[in-house]
Amino acid sequence: MRRAHPVLPLAPGSTIGILGGGQLGRMLALAAARLGFDVAILEPEPDSPAARVSAHAVLAPYDDPAGLQVLARLASVVTYEFENVPAAAVARLADMGVEVAPGPRALEVAQDRFEEKSFLNRHGAATVAFARADSGEEAVEAIALVGAPALMKTRREGYDGKGQRWIEHAADAARAFEELGGRPVILEAAADFRRELSIIAARGRDGATAVYPLSENHHEGGILRRSLAPAEVAGHIAEEAERIAARVLAGLEYVGVIGIELFEMEDGRLLVNEIAPRVHNTGHWTLDGCEVDQFEQHIRAVAGWPLGPTHATARVEMINLLGEEAEGWLRFAHEPETRLHLYGKREPKPGRKMGHVNLVKPLGR
Amino acid sequence: MRRAHPVLPLAPGSTIGILGGGQLGRMLALAAARLGFDVAILEPEPDSPAARVSAHAVLAPYDDPAGLQVLARLASVVTYEFENVPAAAVARLADMGVEVAPGPRALEVAQDRFEEKSFLNRHGAATVAFARADSGEEAVEAIALVGAPALMKTRREGYDGKGQRWIEHAADAARAFEELGGRPVILEAAADFRRELSIIAARGRDGATAVYPLSENHHEGGILRRSLAPAEVAGHIAEEAERIAARVLAGLEYVGVIGIELFEMEDGRLLVNEIAPRVHNTGHWTLDGCEVDQFEQHIRAVAGWPLGPTHATARVEMINLLGEEAEGWLRFAHEPETRLHLYGKREPKPGRKMGHVNLVKPLGR
Repeated sequence: MRRAHPVLPLAPGSTIGILGGGQLGRMLALAAARLGFDVAILEPEPDSPAARVSAHAVLAPYDDPAGLQVLARLASVVTYEFENVPAAAVARLADMGVEVAPGPRALEVAQDRFEEKSFLNRHGAATVAFARADSGEEAVEAIALVGAPALMKTRREGYDGKGQRWIEHAADAARAFEELGGRPVILEAAADFRRELSIIAARGRDGATAVYPLSENHHEGGILRRSLAPAEVAGHIAEEAERIAARVLAGLEYVGVIGIELFEMEDGRLLVNEIAPRVHNTGHWTLDGCEVDQFEQHIRAVAGWPLGPTHATARVEMINLLGEEAEGWLRFAHEPETRLHLYGKREPKPGRKMGHVNLVKPLGR
Repeated sequence: MRRAHPVLPLAPGSTIGILGGGQLGRMLALAAARLGFDVAILEPEPDSPAARVSAHAVLAPYDDPAGLQVLARLASVVTYEFENVPAAAVARLADMGVEVAPGPRALEVAQDRFEEKSFLNRHGAATVAFARADSGEEAVEAIALVGAPALMKTRREGYDGKGQRWIEHAADAARAFEELGGRPVILEAAADFRRELSIIAARGRDGATAVYPLSENHHEGGILRRSLAPAEVAGHIAEEAERIAARVLAGLEYVGVIGIELFEMEDGRLLVNEIAPRVHNTGHWTLDGCEVDQFEQHIRAVAGWPLGPTHATARVEMINLLGEEAEGWLRFAHEPETRLHLYGKREPKPGRKMGHVNLVKPLGR
């Protein structure tokens, strides 16, 4: 059932497929609906947040051939809410003539932390020193290269601080390697950063790009706690972040919204921490601080539409609601400057992202 | 299966029922999803715009007992997107212990144009002169009361200019009465108005009220063409509109968002044209001109949440996209100040509301 790639831009009334039924898929689906699109969600869990606001729900593992075939029949283009989409799924969709955006190159790079940092350095985006290791012995050698303390991460998978640990002494590296499952890892030098920033950027099918103002991000226990945007940054920092975004987007021949996490170093340099080939938690402020938020922007890009404006219309503090914090919804609803976004998740497990609030203030205050 | 009324405010994760699956239901459903609610749509047409963004779709006539029972089982509270909900449906839902908001009083008044104007006058809101007629003979007499030309409308049903006609001479009244189906009518005096305004207002379960800035509205062929908001009005006009809204909301013991159409007369008075006990086309500007739009406001009200802020954050020109006008979507997508809202309707029939655009400009320009 090979068919021609859709003639773009995609007309309203078409169906956009999304791999993943979590909160990012949900907010993408809501944005797509506003533009007149239907949405089909492929997700192995029943009753997912995104499926409950979408026209079609395909209940199947991400790499299930039958499920992917149903999705291919429904959707004119497919995107995803998380970067660990199986490469086989994307290949199978391509075989069936369905384009996936962002494309396979973005997934290859983002799914492997060693490939990612190598790609970044090749494209003129600085990172901390890093080295790969496929054994405990290599891990010890890698520490000698990058110095201690160093952060050991599995090359693949892991999020919100999972699948990683700090190595204080080279002697501990071999044991840590085994504790992380004996899988290929990357060792990263500690970053002496002043603060964490991120830039949300987008690239359309025509190669046009757009960047949102920078966000300043605060993590706790490896999980994003809050973001402030637009971040107060020196002009040259903003320009450097935009240069990095432009290089990454072009290097990946990217289509869609990308999140690029940055370290602002004590010495004033900007290093890339990681890239996420999708809408990003640190871009949730755009829902109430921009005319076109990151979700609509992503839908516009993957549908081949022109990108929308990205300037800030307000100053926003975004605070994630983790676990039982979302039970404070009534208190937030009483605050006139607070915009509440809840994801429809049934179980408030500790650390689970249940929603977020955007505290909105006028620009220039 | 009688059960206690929900303990309010309604918690996220609950299901809100909506009678009607059109664009208003769709935009209500999107707003409800943002706050973490599930939505169940009851609508006789398959593949409706609202059902495609909702967790549950009940395909049944509005007064179908089985369909209403399914809705009652799913939903903690039920609202509606149009005022011609059968009274029997609301009564049946009440029998099953499910609250409907806005309540039966609002529907009774809004479903009958004679009751509506009588209610308004009783509550200190002026209207044009009007008279009822149940026969051609009475229609002729009514013209004598209100003067010619007069507007004859069926007392019940009709929208966007349907079910009404102008009577130039009393002698034509009897024939017009027959042409409108021989049903009870109301005769309204011509309003010598300078312009049409509307006010979107809300009342919470706690009796708190909130009003949005006035909108200036332009109709063509009985269909809303465009709205400008906030309208430029004299201070006393805005205050009078707010007084009218407060009286109407209190008089109906209203819960939810209401649209009140006003005539600004050449002599400076403000007359009420009609009230719509629901979110309203002239409030679509709030989607891009307010922090909490009319759809979220309505969901907040019917869920027993506190009302949100209603001040304008931008100046908006809302233009309805009728019929094939929506096919200009790509042109609109290219305009940076234009926010596009499409309803997912399959067939662009002439005059059919397919979407709208909000042209957004900074306040004070």
